[in-house]
Amino acid sequence: MKLKVFVTLKPGVLDPQGRAIHHALGSLGFEGVQDVRQGKLIELEVADDTDDATIDGMCRKLLANTVIENYRVERA
Amino acid sequence: MKLKVFVTLKPGVLDPQGRAIHHALGSLGFEGVQDVRQGKLIELEVADDTDDATIDGMCRKLLANTVIENYRVERA
Repeated sequence: MKLKVFVTLKPGVLDPQGRAIHHALGSLGFEGVQDVRQGKLIELEVADDTDDATIDGMCRKLLANTVIENYRVERA
Repeated sequence: MKLKVFVTLKPGVLDPQGRAIHHALGSLGFEGVQDVRQGKLIELEVADDTDDATIDGMCRKLLANTVIENYRVERA
């Protein structure tokens, strides 16, 4: 079973990578970019009988730092 | 206008981060994980009149390394 986990910084948390991308886009001449936020897309191939609690555990224990990040799981 | 850019490694390209996550999940006791691949999710807020060619240019010039990465743009 294929899973997609989207990990994004919580609103209000400073995003230095997003800032760096935003700045670089400007110096490359791309106008009209108001904001950039960078997160992670983690694609997992897991056994079909993996239940939601286990997936949640993977996210909370490793894939996302729930103090500053949100995560969303999509079964592909 | 909000855009989501998904940047993923091309199949066959070695993914050390994915490997590290896979290994860590195993040591945390999560069984049944067959593969892990990590990519980037870049969320941009751009002017409404930003056209596809410009967005494509941002991806090709900065957001993705098209030699080893694929990218997909989603208008949110």
